[in-house]
Parts: sequence; structure tokens; C-alpha cells
Amino acid sequence: MKIEIKDLIQDGPKYVLPNISVDSVIFGYHEKELKVLLQRPQGISKWMLPGGYVHRDETIKQAAERVVKNRTGLDRLFLNQFQSFGTPTRTKDSELTPALFAEINQMELDENHWMFDYFVSIGFYSLTEFSKVVPSGEFYLEECTWWNIGDLPSLLYDHQEIIEAALKALRLHIYHYPIGYELLPEKFTLPEIHSLYETILDKTFDSRNFGKKLIATGIIKKLDERRNIGAHRAPFLYVFDMENYNQALENGYALFV
Amino acid sequence: MKIEIKDLIQDGPKYVLPNISVDSVIFGYHEKELKVLLQRPQGISKWMLPGGYVHRDETIKQAAERVVKNRTGLDRLFLNQFQSFGTPTRTKDSELTPALFAEINQMELDENHWMFDYFVSIGFYSLTEFSKVVPSGEFYLEECTWWNIGDLPSLLYDHQEIIEAALKALRLHIYHYPIGYELLPEKFTLPEIHSLYETILDKTFDSRNFGKKLIATGIIKKLDERRNIGAHRAPFLYVFDMENYNQALENGYALFV
Repeated sequence: MKIEIKDLIQDGPKYVLPNISVDSVIFGYHEKELKVLLQRPQGISKWMLPGGYVHRDETIKQAAERVVKNRTGLDRLFLNQFQSFGTPTRTKDSELTPALFAEINQMELDENHWMFDYFVSIGFYSLTEFSKVVPSGEFYLEECTWWNIGDLPSLLYDHQEIIEAALKALRLHIYHYPIGYELLPEKFTLPEIHSLYETILDKTFDSRNFGKKLIATGIIKKLDERRNIGAHRAPFLYVFDMENYNQALENGYALFV
Repeated sequence: MKIEIKDLIQDGPKYVLPNISVDSVIFGYHEKELKVLLQRPQGISKWMLPGGYVHRDETIKQAAERVVKNRTGLDRLFLNQFQSFGTPTRTKDSELTPALFAEINQMELDENHWMFDYFVSIGFYSLTEFSKVVPSGEFYLEECTWWNIGDLPSLLYDHQEIIEAALKALRLHIYHYPIGYELLPEKFTLPEIHSLYETILDKTFDSRNFGKKLIATGIIKKLDERRNIGAHRAPFLYVFDMENYNQALENGYALFV
């Protein structure tokens, strides 16, 4: 169901659940860098997460998927719900008042407008290869771009806190669910997957031990094939064992590195 | 703020957030048994989790705490948010229709009443020593009691799914956050804490190895004191190191057993 923006602003709760939003923290990995996708609406200086409302005929997960796709052009992302945020004042922000919002949208809006009520937001995170995606925001966004996780701009509402919670959840999940399939080339070297884990966890691991432990989980397997990267340097290539990988995604496991 | 039940039913959204509820999965541990606290409202045969609405002046966590305290008599429980549940039909159940609810409460209620709309529920879980607590439900509850986790009754709505998700979350968290302070006597033996982990995880661990790993985390420390449990049997007693325990609660750790 496509809802016109004017109808949404005027009669929102007819189409969407009032007081509930979804926000998505989309992490992007590329060659030892971890970034997060943020957008900046017209007329304000602070940045925010891609987020939106839940239509009355969709699940909260479908809402998150639709919002991410509409707002960023990213399709078929693996979205993982991690935490909900609910404090009465979390979406009060002097940067984005009902009056300013009304001005930007050229309409009348009172102080008690449903969009500025107490909102509980359900947080999802995703992990993607950021060099493969071209973010493209919707009409009302001025910018939509990747930011380094260690160097974020000033964020609207409690979105800084949401990003921190998402990162904490991602780092916990990584020890129990496999990652990497969407982030690495089909055939990769042990140093490549080692860098991926080190970057996301912001830790260093002994490389020999890390490789041994990861192989022991069964999610990757060695090929009888090498990559030539220079004189006398030709590391073996690995691929994910998709049967074990998917089973681990389903049931969890414990990676002790 | 105390809201009268008649006012709540008639004008709910004036006092509470519409379309949002909190549900709590309260696990109880006692001597190798894991149970969950359930309640059965008057007039229906299915059981449900203690749950309720979010007042407009409280956070979602405060709502969960208030609900658990009011409905069960349990105070100061450690509640851990683990997942939110939102599908359009999750609270449609032929066991509890608007008509039946109206009859029980002796009032008129139409099919589109706010209480029977699409609700997103925010799930919390808690872990407590069930022999220490006497559950006591509110007036409209017929029963409120502990059920064995492996032998649950028929549950209302999606509450079976919520319990399974809570258990999965608890079992993941246990490897990264310390448990036991509320569940064991102040001084305990290694076999006692070993049983606690085995019961919650529904797994067996080599006892020597388990003790060694747990001591290595720093959260427990050996006392120069033993408990006499029979001829020639006097295992050493342990206590939690509260400084390390609280730090691990804050920052997480990895227990590899």
C-alpha cells in the first residue's frame, strides 16, 4: 500500500500504527573500515537513521525492510532486530520541532500532532559491503551517505544511543552467528576474513589461532587453490560451507577466538 | 499514576500508548529446575504472560517493571529487554474475543475497540529464585503460577513463541553476562553453580573444566571455608566477586565452557 505523504501527515493513524517507528542501523564494511549509513533531512543540520512507520497490514520486520528500501535504495538486506527504544522524551529535539516540520512541508500542524507524540522505536541492524551499494535518499532528504563509525556527525533524537546499542549487539552476535557471506568475495584468504572480524570487533586476534578456530566451526573450507599476491606469496583460498553456514545462522554456535 | 480499569477500557489511549504492550517472561530457577511464571485470566482456558500497557509518562522498562510488580507481587526484578513482536494478527485469538472480554467486564465493546487492535509487544525476561517468591495475581486473574519450561500449558496469542525467544536470548546472554547472584545462596559450591548453568542451558559440562573456566573469568572466588555434606565430603565454598561481577554485567565477557 502506497500512502501519500499529505494523507500520512494528516491522518497517519488511519494507515500506520501511531506511537511506533522502526529505525535501521545499516553498517557497511569495506577493506578494514566500518561505516554506518545516515541521512539528513532538508532544513536541519543533524543526521538521523533511516526510519519510518509500520503500516497496519505489515509486520514490524516488513516495515523495516520497506523503509530501508524506499529511503536508501538498498534491497534484500538482512535485517536483524536488536532492541526497542522507549522513553517519553526521546523524540523531542529542538532541531526538529512541529513548527519547523510544518514550515518545511508547507502546512498547518499543531503542537500535539501525532508525529510528535511519544514514539517507541524498534531498532534493526544490517551489515553490508558498502562499496557495492549506492545510497539514494527520498525527496525530502538533503543527504544520505556513509559515515565512519568512529567519527559520527551530530545525531537527531537518541540515534547516537541506538547506533551504540546496535554495535554492541552486532559484536555479541558475531561470536554466535556466522558473518561474511555478503561482505567477502566468493573466494577469500584467511587474512581477509581475519581483517573483517578484527574491524568489526575493534580487536586484534592472533592470526594463526583465529584461522584454526574459524575452520574448526566448519563454516569455511579450504580450496585446493591459491591467490598470487606477489613473489613467493600465494595464500590458500577459502569459501563458506553454505550448509554449515546456514545451519549456524539458524541454530547459533560459539566461536572462541 | 493509577488508572481506573473502566477509564482504561473506555479511553485507554488518553492514558497509555495505543498499539504497544509489554510482556514479561519471568524464569524461575530452583535446584535443577527451570520454570516460567504464567497467569490465566478469568473466563478463558489459555494461559498468558504477565503483560500490560505503557503509561504516557513512563519508559517501556518502567512499564514492564510496574506490570510485573502489580500483576505478580514480584518487586525489583532484573528485567532484560530481548525482542519485540509485531505481526498484524498476533493478538487475534478465538479464546479471547472483544465479545467475551465485554461479557467478563460487563460492558459494551465494539469489534474495533482499541484493546483488540494490532499490538506490538516488547518482550522482557527475568531470572529469579522461584522458591523465594509467592506469585499473587490481580483481581481479574483466576490463576498465577509457575510452569515447568518443558511442560507448558496451551498459551494465548503468540506467547509460546515469545517464551521460546526469551529462552534463546537468555541462553545466548549467559555466555556473555554473569548470572547467579540472585539465584544461589551467598556462599555456594562449584557443583551448585555448575548445576545452575547446566539447567538453564539444558546441556552438560565437564565439571572440572567448567569450574576452571568460571574461576578464570574472575566473577567467583574461592573462600578458605568448606561445607560439610557428609563423610569425607566437604567441598570448598565460593562467593561472587561483586566488583568483577558488576563490571562483567556492564561490559560483557566471554565464558567458554
